[in-house]
Amino acid sequence: MSDFKRLKLNLEKPVPSDFQISRNQKPKHITEVAKESGVLEDEIEPYGAYKGKVKLDVIDRLHNRKDGRYILVTGITPTPLGEGKSTTTVGLAQAIGATLGKTAFANVRQPSMGPTFGVKGGAAGGGYSQVIPMDEFNMHITGDIHAVGMANNLLAAALDTRIFHESTQTDKALWKRLCPERKDGSRDIPIGLTARIKKLGLDTKDPKEWTEEEISKFVRLDVDQETITWKRVLDLNDRSLRGITINEAPTEKGLTRKTGFDITVASEVMAILALSTSLKDMRERLGKMVVASSKSGEPITCEDLGCAGALTAIMKDAIKPNLMQTLEGTPVFVHAGPFANISIGASSILADKMALKLAGVEPGLTEEEEKEQVGYVITEAGFDFTMGGERFLNIKCRASGLKPDVIIIVATVRALKVHGGGAEVKAGAPLPLEYTTENVEMLRKGCANLQKHIENAKQYGVDVIVAINRMSSDSDKEHDVIKEASLAAGATDAIVSNHWEQGGQGAKDLAEGVIKCANGEYPSQKDSTEKFDFLYATEGKTIEEKISIIAKKMYGAGDVEFLPAAQEKIKEYTAQGFDNLPICIAKTQYSLSHDAKLKGVPTGFTFPIRDIKASIGAGYLYALAAEIQTIPGLATKCGFMNVEVNNDGEIEGLF
Amino acid sequence: MSDFKRLKLNLEKPVPSDFQISRNQKPKHITEVAKESGVLEDEIEPYGAYKGKVKLDVIDRLHNRKDGRYILVTGITPTPLGEGKSTTTVGLAQAIGATLGKTAFANVRQPSMGPTFGVKGGAAGGGYSQVIPMDEFNMHITGDIHAVGMANNLLAAALDTRIFHESTQTDKALWKRLCPERKDGSRDIPIGLTARIKKLGLDTKDPKEWTEEEISKFVRLDVDQETITWKRVLDLNDRSLRGITINEAPTEKGLTRKTGFDITVASEVMAILALSTSLKDMRERLGKMVVASSKSGEPITCEDLGCAGALTAIMKDAIKPNLMQTLEGTPVFVHAGPFANISIGASSILADKMALKLAGVEPGLTEEEEKEQVGYVITEAGFDFTMGGERFLNIKCRASGLKPDVIIIVATVRALKVHGGGAEVKAGAPLPLEYTTENVEMLRKGCANLQKHIENAKQYGVDVIVAINRMSSDSDKEHDVIKEASLAAGATDAIVSNHWEQGGQGAKDLAEGVIKCANGEYPSQKDSTEKFDFLYATEGKTIEEKISIIAKKMYGAGDVEFLPAAQEKIKEYTAQGFDNLPICIAKTQYSLSHDAKLKGVPTGFTFPIRDIKASIGAGYLYALAAEIQTIPGLATKCGFMNVEVNNDGEIEGLF
Repeated sequence: MSDFKRLKLNLEKPVPSDFQISRNQKPKHITEVAKESGVLEDEIEPYGAYKGKVKLDVIDRLHNRKDGRYILVTGITPTPLGEGKSTTTVGLAQAIGATLGKTAFANVRQPSMGPTFGVKGGAAGGGYSQVIPMDEFNMHITGDIHAVGMANNLLAAALDTRIFHESTQTDKALWKRLCPERKDGSRDIPIGLTARIKKLGLDTKDPKEWTEEEISKFVRLDVDQETITWKRVLDLNDRSLRGITINEAPTEKGLTRKTGFDITVASEVMAILALSTSLKDMRERLGKMVVASSKSGEPITCEDLGCAGALTAIMKDAIKPNLMQTLEGTPVFVHAGPFANISIGASSILADKMALKLAGVEPGLTEEEEKEQVGYVITEAGFDFTMGGERFLNIKCRASGLKPDVIIIVATVRALKVHGGGAEVKAGAPLPLEYTTENVEMLRKGCANLQKHIENAKQYGVDVIVAINRMSSDSDKEHDVIKEASLAAGATDAIVSNHWEQGGQGAKDLAEGVIKCANGEYPSQKDSTEKFDFLYATEGKTIEEKISIIAKKMYGAGDVEFLPAAQEKIKEYTAQGFDNLPICIAKTQYSLSHDAKLKGVPTGFTFPIRDIKASIGAGYLYALAAEIQTIPGLATKCGFMNVEVNNDGEIEGLF
Repeated sequence: MSDFKRLKLNLEKPVPSDFQISRNQKPKHITEVAKESGVLEDEIEPYGAYKGKVKLDVIDRLHNRKDGRYILVTGITPTPLGEGKSTTTVGLAQAIGATLGKTAFANVRQPSMGPTFGVKGGAAGGGYSQVIPMDEFNMHITGDIHAVGMANNLLAAALDTRIFHESTQTDKALWKRLCPERKDGSRDIPIGLTARIKKLGLDTKDPKEWTEEEISKFVRLDVDQETITWKRVLDLNDRSLRGITINEAPTEKGLTRKTGFDITVASEVMAILALSTSLKDMRERLGKMVVASSKSGEPITCEDLGCAGALTAIMKDAIKPNLMQTLEGTPVFVHAGPFANISIGASSILADKMALKLAGVEPGLTEEEEKEQVGYVITEAGFDFTMGGERFLNIKCRASGLKPDVIIIVATVRALKVHGGGAEVKAGAPLPLEYTTENVEMLRKGCANLQKHIENAKQYGVDVIVAINRMSSDSDKEHDVIKEASLAAGATDAIVSNHWEQGGQGAKDLAEGVIKCANGEYPSQKDSTEKFDFLYATEGKTIEEKISIIAKKMYGAGDVEFLPAAQEKIKEYTAQGFDNLPICIAKTQYSLSHDAKLKGVPTGFTFPIRDIKASIGAGYLYALAAEIQTIPGLATKCGFMNVEVNNDGEIEGLF
C-alpha cells in the first residue's frame, strides 16, 4: 500500500490490558483506512469515525483483477484459554501490512454481545495485536447482528401468526384476506406469495380459474407443529429462554406450543450472511430456509410464508462488509459471525472476496511483478483445524469457489503439553507447574495432536505453516521440538511469533514465512504436485457416507453410530431431497473426538451422531455429536458488572 | 440558513405513492445537511450517506445561544386513518425552511419496525411532506431501537439469572463468587455493585468487617417473583410472545415463571432515551429502573443488579440524535420513539434541545434582529392534544425545562364530522358519503371536539394555531366553519394547509401564521398576560389527586373510579416514595373519554383506573384506563408480503 500511514506502537512491559492498549491508540478515520485500501470515496459508508460499510460494487469494479493470496488461520485442539488464533490473524496482518509494507487484510468475525457481557470478554485479538476501537468492535458495530435477529424473528412471528390464522379461518376467508378481490374480479396477490404460486405450478393459470382444492393448497400451509425447527433469537446469554411455552395469552386461543430462543449468531440467517456470494444469492438462500414440515411431510420454507423479500430488505445493509483497522492501522473486515458450535464459525465469503480483490493485482504481470505487488488476506476459522478448517474448506470454500494458498495452524506449548498428558487447564485457575516450566518430553508427546492437524490439512492439498504463539515461559528448546514435529508431519515451516507482546514486529518472521509459502518459494514446494480438493463429494454420496468420511479421515474415528433420531432425520431429509448438501458436524472443540476428555490423538473410537438438523438456506446439514447449548447463560458474577461509562462518555471495564 | 440548498419538488397529480415520491428525490449527503444546519464537521457521525448521529457536544458548544422557537404539533381526537400530524410537522418544516428560507427543524419519532412490516406501513409523513429516504427511515436507522432492545433484555437476563443463582447458592457462595477474595484478603468488588453497597449504607465499612447479616443483605436480592414487572422486548408484531412461560429447560431446575414480551418501543429504556437530558442523566435513570420488589416489599432496581453501567454502554451511541432530511432537504432529527399507548409518545428531549440551539440566536440581539434570525423547531406529540399534548407538557417539558411557544392542533373536516355524528370511519373500507361531500351542519357540531382541545391547550398558557389539513373533498365553507369555531374557542388563528399535495409551498400560509404567532405578532397576543404553567404540581398531591385533575380538567370526566388493583398499587408506590411523580394516563385515543365510542365532547362520565404501573427511571407512573396491548400482532395479509428487494438492491413495496 503506497500511501499507507502506519500507527506506531508504544510497546510497554508488562503488556497493559487489551482495553488500555486500545484506548491509548488513536485510530485513523475510517475514510482514510478505506482510501489506503483502494476503496473509492463513494464505496465506503462511514458509520461513525472508525467503522464503515463497503459497498459490494468494489467486487464488480475489480473483477478483472487476479485475487490476492488467501491465508487461512486455524489451530490445534485448544485449551479453554484459547491458543491465540484471532491474535495471530491480527498480528500477522499487522506484520505484513505495517512492518513489511505490503497490502494485508485481516478478516474476522463479528463477536456476539452475549459473551461480551457474560464471562468471556471481547474477541478483538489481544495485547498489541488487536482490532480497534475494541469497545466498538465488541458492541453493535454497524448493527448486522441486530438485522440478523430482526430477520430471524420476523420469520418466526410470520410462522406462528400463520398457524393461528389458519386455525381460525376457512380456506375461503384466508383466500379473501391474503389475495383480496379487486373491483374487476382479479386478485391482488402480494409479491411475496408469487414464489409459492410457482412452486405449486399455479402460475400458469388465472387465479379466477383456480379450483377450491388449488386455493386450499395455496392458502393453507398446514404446518405440523411438532416439526417446527425455527426458533426465535436474542444476542444475549439468556438461559431462561432456552425452553419456553408461547401463545399463552388469552388472545391466542389455547394454541400453546413449546419452543425456545437461540443466541442470534446461531441463527441460520447468520450462516447465510456468511455464505452468500451476492445480494441475489442471499435473497434465494433466505427464501429456501425450511422452518417446519407440513402435515403431509413437505418442507415449509420462508418463501411459502411470503417473507423472503422482507427478510432481504432487513438484511440489505448487513450484507456489506464492515471495515475497521488494527492497532497499527492496517485494514480489517469484520463481517458475519456464525456460531462455531453448530455452524461454520467463519467470517463472510463476501468480505473475503472483497479483500482478495483489493489485495489483488491487475492481469498481465510477470511472476516477479505479481509477487512484488500482490497483497494478503488473512481469514480465520473458529475452533481447531479439524473442525473449523474442515468446515471452512468443505462448506465455505465450496460455496465461494475460493481456495486458500496457505493454511496456518496456531500452536502453543501450553496446549500441546495438555495433549502430552499435562493436568487439566481451567479458565480462572492458576496454571499447573508443567505449563510454566520446560518439559520437553511432555511437549514432544503432545505434538502428535499438532501433527494430526497438519496431516489433516495436507489432505486438502494446501501447504501448512505452523505458527508457534509464543508465551513468556516457553523455552527455545521447546520451540525446536515443535518445529521438528511440524516438519516431520509435512508442514512447510514452523515459526515462532510474538505478536501479542510486540505487535507486527513480533510476527515479522511468521509474515516472511507466510509470504514465501504463499508464493511457492520454499524449496520443498518447488516440485509439489499437490492440488486442492474437497474431502468428499456432496453428490452421489449418502448423508451417512459423508459423515463417516469426516469422522474417520479427520477425527480418527473407527466407526460412526447413528442414533435413532439421526436415522429418522436422514430418511426425512433424503426424501425431501436435501441429501446432496455438505455436512457441518457439531462436536466438542476440546478433543479430536466427540469426547472432550480424550486428548492427544484418540483413534478407533465410535463416533455417535445423536441428531441431524438442516440449514437448507445456508446450504448444509448439521449433525450433532453432542448436546449443543445454543444459548449460553450468565454466571453469578458477570462481565456486565464491571462495565461503566465514565464522565467523558468512554466505556470502562469492558475487559 | 444562509447556504441552504433546497431540493426542488416535481409535483405530480394525482400524488404518487409515498415510496415513489421518496425514491424520485435524490437526498443530499448527510454531511451537507449537517453543515447547513450549523453542525461542525467533527460533530456529525455519518451512518451511510443519508443518516448521521450528531454528538451532544453541539449543545455545550452553543449553550450561550438563546433557543429557537419551539412549536408543538398535536391534533384533535382522530379517526383510525390518522389526521396528518406527522405530515403537518414535516410539511411545516419544509415551508419554513425551504419556502420561506428560515432555519427549521422537524423533530420526529423513530418508527418501530413492528408496524412497518405489519399492516400500518411507514411513519415518515406522506405525499410531498416526507422524511427521506423513507425506506431507511422505516428500518434500523442507526440502530437505536436495537440498542434499546439489547439494554432492556440484558436487564431481564440479569434478573432471571440472579434469581436462579440465588435459588441454588448459599449467601457465602454468592459472596465468594460476586466479590472474590484477593490474595491479601480484600474483596474484588465489581464496579457495578458499588451503588448497592452505598444504598445499604455499607460503603463506610471494610468488606472484611461486614457481618453475616450484612453480607446476606448485599448478596441476596430476594426477589418476589410475583412482583416482577420487567418484560423482555422485540421490535416486532409477535402476538405469540404476549404470554409465555420461561425457564422450562431442564437446566433451569423447574423455576418456571409466566411472563411475556412487549414491543421494544414500549420498553422503559425507550422512554428514558426520550426523557434524558444528558449521558449522566441517562445513566442515573437506567440505574433507577425498578424491575420487581423484594419479598420484604422493597423495590429492586437495575442498580441492585449491577447492570446500569453496562446498559449505559449499550446505549452510549443511541443517545446521540439522528439527523436526516425532508423531501425538500431541510433537516430532521429522528430520535427515540416511546410507545404512545403507555408512554409519552414524543421524540427526545436531547433532539429538541439540540435543534433549539442550532435554531437559536446569539445573545444581545435586538428584538427585530432576533425575529429576523431565529429558527423554528417543530416537534410532534403522539395521539391528540389531550393525551399526547398533555403528556408532552406535564412530563416531557417538566423533565426538559423547555416550554413550547406555539401549540398547533391539526384538524381535518373528516374527523370533525365523525365528532358531529358521522358514521364510523374504518381503515380499508370506503368512506361514507358525508365525508366526501359538504355537510356544514355535521361539521359545525363536530367542531366542539376541536374547541375542547383548544381550551385544554389554553389551560397551559400557550397560544394555539389550528392547522386545517386539507383534503380534496373539503369545501371552502367547511374550512370557514372550522376557522370560526377555532377563534371562538381561543385559538390565535386557524389556517388551511395543503402540504401533502404541494409540500412546503402548500403549508406557506400555515408557516407564516406560526412564525407570526411564535413571535407574538398577532394583535390578540399583544396584551396577553398568559404564562406557561403545568396542569398539576407533582409534589404535595396524592396519586389520586393528580389523576383526577387530568381526567376532569382534560378529559371532561365527572368522577374517577380507582379499581382495587389500582388502589393497591397506589398504596404500594406511595409507601415506596414514588408518589411524587407525574402521571401518564393510558387510554383510547379515539375519544376524549376512556370509551372509544363516545365521540364529540363527552362529559360527566366516570373515568375508570384499572391499574397503575411505574416507570421510575423514566420518571412517571402510568395509569391504565383500558387494557393496553403492549405487543401488536400480524394480520393474515401482512405488510411484509409486499416487500421485495429488486436487482438494483432497492427495496420495493415497503408501502
